[in-house]
Amino acid sequence: MRPVNFSPGPSIVAPEVLEQAAQALRGVPEVQGLSIVEISHRLPWFEKVVQDTEDALRRLLGVPDTHTILFLQGGARGQFAQVPLNWLLPGTVAAYIDTGVWARGAYDDAKTLGDARIVASSANAARGAYLELPDVSGLELPANTAYVHTTSNNTIYGTQWPTMPTFGAVPHVSDMSSDILSRPIDVSQFKLVYAGAQKNAGISGLTLLFLDKAWMAAARNDIPSIWQYRVQDANDSMYNTPPTFAIYTTLLVCRWLEELGGVPAIAARNEAKASALYAAIDGADGFYRGCVDPRHRSRMNVTYRLPSEALEKRFVAECEAAGLHHLKGHRKAGGIRASIYNALPLEGVERLIAFMQAFRQRH
Amino acid sequence: MRPVNFSPGPSIVAPEVLEQAAQALRGVPEVQGLSIVEISHRLPWFEKVVQDTEDALRRLLGVPDTHTILFLQGGARGQFAQVPLNWLLPGTVAAYIDTGVWARGAYDDAKTLGDARIVASSANAARGAYLELPDVSGLELPANTAYVHTTSNNTIYGTQWPTMPTFGAVPHVSDMSSDILSRPIDVSQFKLVYAGAQKNAGISGLTLLFLDKAWMAAARNDIPSIWQYRVQDANDSMYNTPPTFAIYTTLLVCRWLEELGGVPAIAARNEAKASALYAAIDGADGFYRGCVDPRHRSRMNVTYRLPSEALEKRFVAECEAAGLHHLKGHRKAGGIRASIYNALPLEGVERLIAFMQAFRQRH
Repeated sequence: MRPVNFSPGPSIVAPEVLEQAAQALRGVPEVQGLSIVEISHRLPWFEKVVQDTEDALRRLLGVPDTHTILFLQGGARGQFAQVPLNWLLPGTVAAYIDTGVWARGAYDDAKTLGDARIVASSANAARGAYLELPDVSGLELPANTAYVHTTSNNTIYGTQWPTMPTFGAVPHVSDMSSDILSRPIDVSQFKLVYAGAQKNAGISGLTLLFLDKAWMAAARNDIPSIWQYRVQDANDSMYNTPPTFAIYTTLLVCRWLEELGGVPAIAARNEAKASALYAAIDGADGFYRGCVDPRHRSRMNVTYRLPSEALEKRFVAECEAAGLHHLKGHRKAGGIRASIYNALPLEGVERLIAFMQAFRQRH
Repeated sequence: MRPVNFSPGPSIVAPEVLEQAAQALRGVPEVQGLSIVEISHRLPWFEKVVQDTEDALRRLLGVPDTHTILFLQGGARGQFAQVPLNWLLPGTVAAYIDTGVWARGAYDDAKTLGDARIVASSANAARGAYLELPDVSGLELPANTAYVHTTSNNTIYGTQWPTMPTFGAVPHVSDMSSDILSRPIDVSQFKLVYAGAQKNAGISGLTLLFLDKAWMAAARNDIPSIWQYRVQDANDSMYNTPPTFAIYTTLLVCRWLEELGGVPAIAARNEAKASALYAAIDGADGFYRGCVDPRHRSRMNVTYRLPSEALEKRFVAECEAAGLHHLKGHRKAGGIRASIYNALPLEGVERLIAFMQAFRQRH
């Protein structure tokens, strides 16, 4: 039986994408059969790869012309630092919505560069966890707020904004590393969306950015060139040698997504997967217990507990033996975490549900 | 006839490495047949990949225990910014040896962060070029020099330090992006060596660092975490999701190098390749003219001119037709550039030399 890959990240990649990437690694006919990894990023063929990737992302997410698309290195943590360096100027405040470990990490880095504040938090001090999202409907932000920062999906505890909050005219920056391309978003509502590619959009080592050009122009220009978004933009993300293979893999993922029907189609599939799995958890007479507030359950990372840690350990081990891999929860959260990103087929979730029912009957 | 790849970067990779990388992309037996790109960097199998890569680099270059080895993102340009951010403190001076476009780029970024100075330069104002290396034997550095920065090989114009200069007790930082692993170096002479992997050590998207631990401890700790070397070191280069596939490819390159006999063996092969090519240039009665001072000729990037730009254009086009690819010089330098990195076999250079002789006879 084929293995099912519930890895939290780097995560499952569609077999068609892996096959095409392996072919390009062996040789690309358009560049004399040389490998994708041994050619200059300045070759017209590769420049077209970058352009095609940008075009595909623009179509898939409806990225408006007001926003540029950048391909950078350094992951989300790179952006935790680069965003405040660029926009958190003296006399302004960076407002962070604290919904999990990564949101808090973004805040911690911003603090080293200026006046960063947590303006809303769902940290549950008693349980050392983030089991819901804060209510931000009536949130009042300081008048001199440079930007407000959100994290769309919390991979560790398994919460996700059902729809992204809005903050009027205040610039909104969002880390969407773990749910980019999994559902429609209105990019025009954000000054910046950034996302590591290694969950839904490709492999590790690449960060995608959708950045409002006017906001980019307002950023600092007295910092090292590599940290200036405008410099990267002026050089079509090739100011330094880009991670060429990772960009190409993202192009393959975009093509695979478009063949599936685009973001609405994958969002429907993701909803079907998550609904089925949560229904199985909720319908188990308390043997399985979802970890987080049902209003804020993630469609990407489904977290749940069993009656005891001993049973959880056994569950994970028996899953592995049954070809259901990487279901152990994050060490901070414990329990079970099923990461069901875009490339995981519905059949994988169905196999997990069947296993859960059989496991429950045995125990 | 198989194509010969003289690409300046990303550059030729050994066929054995490409084949093994493609296999791992299709599936790794030790992790249930999942692809190398769709597994967590926290799996013991991948942690061992990182450890094995570090061990191999330590053996290949004799990296002493005083130095840690880091695997970061962002390329050399990332280090252009991160180095002064960490060590160029108020009241100190960063001293740059200006030997080419990349050396100058490192200086330009450092200037935005503190008192950076060019203490020696081989910029040739009249010709807008760098055709030799400066004499630094009697160089006097300011007493409060935080570090002196060198670039070991100049890819664009084709110069290379025959042996790396030394600066007594002053911390020496060197960008070895384009000749790392091509010849022996005494890492203990440097506080920091950094190198993008995409020439001799793997694929783009990975930066290798050999960093003196005591010097690392003296760096700033009030900056964003991602830019603190000590944080990366404490997390074994996995503070954020690392570029897993790029690290694995570097491991394959290291194994390939060890099978060839290690760095002394590849250095001898590189010397044979470069000597043969320079001899062909010098023995052509002036039809081919080497661009740079013969004392400082690069063993990695061999630059030369033909009697006219029209002939150079024809040369490049006929080379392409003959399966000799990517020989066009950098746009800043013009002429011909044969990048003959580690993975280029001697036979590739011999084919180029034979073509050069035939071309000269025809014209």
